[in-house]
Amino acid sequence: MSDKTTSVEDLKSAVAKFVSARDWDRYHSPKNLAMSISIEAAEIMEHFQWLTVEEAVEAMKDEKVRREVEDEIADVMIYCLSFVGQTGIDVSESIRSKLERNEGRFPVNRISGYSVDGGEGEKGGNRE
Amino acid sequence: MSDKTTSVEDLKSAVAKFVSARDWDRYHSPKNLAMSISIEAAEIMEHFQWLTVEEAVEAMKDEKVRREVEDEIADVMIYCLSFVGQTGIDVSESIRSKLERNEGRFPVNRISGYSVDGGEGEKGGNRE
Amino acid sequence: MSDKTTSVEDLKSAVAKFVSARDWDRYHSPKNLAMSISIEAAEIMEHFQWLTVEEAVEAMKDEKVRREVEDEIADVMIYCLSFVGQTGIDVSESIRSKLERNEGRFPVNRISGYSVDGGEGEKGGNRE
Amino acid sequence: MSDKTTSVEDLKSAVAKFVSARDWDRYHSPKNLAMSISIEAAEIMEHFQWLTVEEAVEAMKDEKVRREVEDEIADVMIYCLSFVGQTGIDVSESIRSKLERNEGRFPVNRISGYSVDGGEGEKGGNRE
Repeated sequence: MSDKTTSVEDLKSAVAKFVSARDWDRYHSPKNLAMSISIEAAEIMEHFQWLTVEEAVEAMKDEKVRREVEDEIADVMIYCLSFVGQTGIDVSESIRSKLERNEGRFPVNRISGYSVDGGEGEKGGNRE
Repeated sequence: MSDKTTSVEDLKSAVAKFVSARDWDRYHSPKNLAMSISIEAAEIMEHFQWLTVEEAVEAMKDEKVRREVEDEIADVMIYCLSFVGQTGIDVSESIRSKLERNEGRFPVNRISGYSVDGGEGEKGGNRE
Repeated sequence: MSDKTTSVEDLKSAVAKFVSARDWDRYHSPKNLAMSISIEAAEIMEHFQWLTVEEAVEAMKDEKVRREVEDEIADVMIYCLSFVGQTGIDVSESIRSKLERNEGRFPVNRISGYSVDGGEGEKGGNRE
Repeated sequence: MSDKTTSVEDLKSAVAKFVSARDWDRYHSPKNLAMSISIEAAEIMEHFQWLTVEEAVEAMKDEKVRREVEDEIADVMIYCLSFVGQTGIDVSESIRSKLERNEGRFPVNRISGYSVDGGEGEKGGNRE
């Protein structure tokens, strides 16, 4: 199971199987899963809370930090995959569609890097 | 590009291409991306903030809500995919490993559903 | 030190004293404190993650849950108070100003309760 | 209404009055408010998402950024004040109690600043 040989559907199935084997579907409702995604996202942040942007880059080279952060990202994605599984969303399609619209909003030759970008809030981002 | 035919690597590549074409790699550092994942996660929650758990299930049947939520989940996953891409994490492997350990922590015959679960904080969850 | 006899300035001073005694002002910068507020906010949510809205009301009657939640809210407010202290914001004035503008946006006779409210996202809220 | 002359109770009352005048108490339940606090906390972060720690300090000197951030912090505190009001928590007491315990956990002469601090996750923080 590596990123190259794993389809998004494979991951969705693995998560769905785990959840339903425990009869947890009733808890994995949109409101609860939205909270869960956010809670796990905060746990990623905890690792970088008091570090500068540069120190955080260094911290990721530490094997222990790296493994812990990997776990938190897995948690965020597991809950995302459960959300899209429970609600019948094809998330590859959602991501493709979002990137496509962002292509239009941030044309490559107009926006590249910090100084050229008009909007502070949009720099580096795919906000809508 | 559907979940069945899309590999996780395909999504990582699509995101990496989008980011580097805009020279945004310098902003997509661990500390910033951790914030970004959390910000987008909060935007999923906004849709369910004042709804009961049941109302949130209903809300997802509304086409407009559904499309907006899809977009927010795409955003969370785009930032996760950028994070794992930037830091060289194989996230399919991370997810598989996390689910495997959770199998051990929440054995199927002992834990199924609400009343049987020992720990309130762990019900429905894959917390560590 | 009760809510009736404590001024907001008293709380700001207590937090500022704690932080500076440990030479932590250098870490209590806007970006870091914004993350900290969000991390602690997620810890409040953890207590209600898998509960219905009604069950969460009941959970708060449990002495242990109540004391833990109290602690998490204190943490959120401590970081907010440090933020406004570090950046010279008079937060009582900010709150008064925000409530005043919300009075204009949500007039009492037009908006009361669920069904009368025009905007889903604004129900029960003071969003801008 | 300045921090020096405003008691925490004054703020709680102002928020409670605003909420009950709109018949919003039914929405201001613990689970919903926990989400709301977290959503508003994310809106503070948005302003600093792509900035370095140092740039974020500078950004707060910009009048427009400053006023927007002030508003987001007011929102976080409004929801915290509603939470403690709805559930009968004396938050000044909670904050005092939390700071007192933190005094014990982070003794001044042992822990001051970055290098002396034992725990990465606890540096600059009041985590429990």
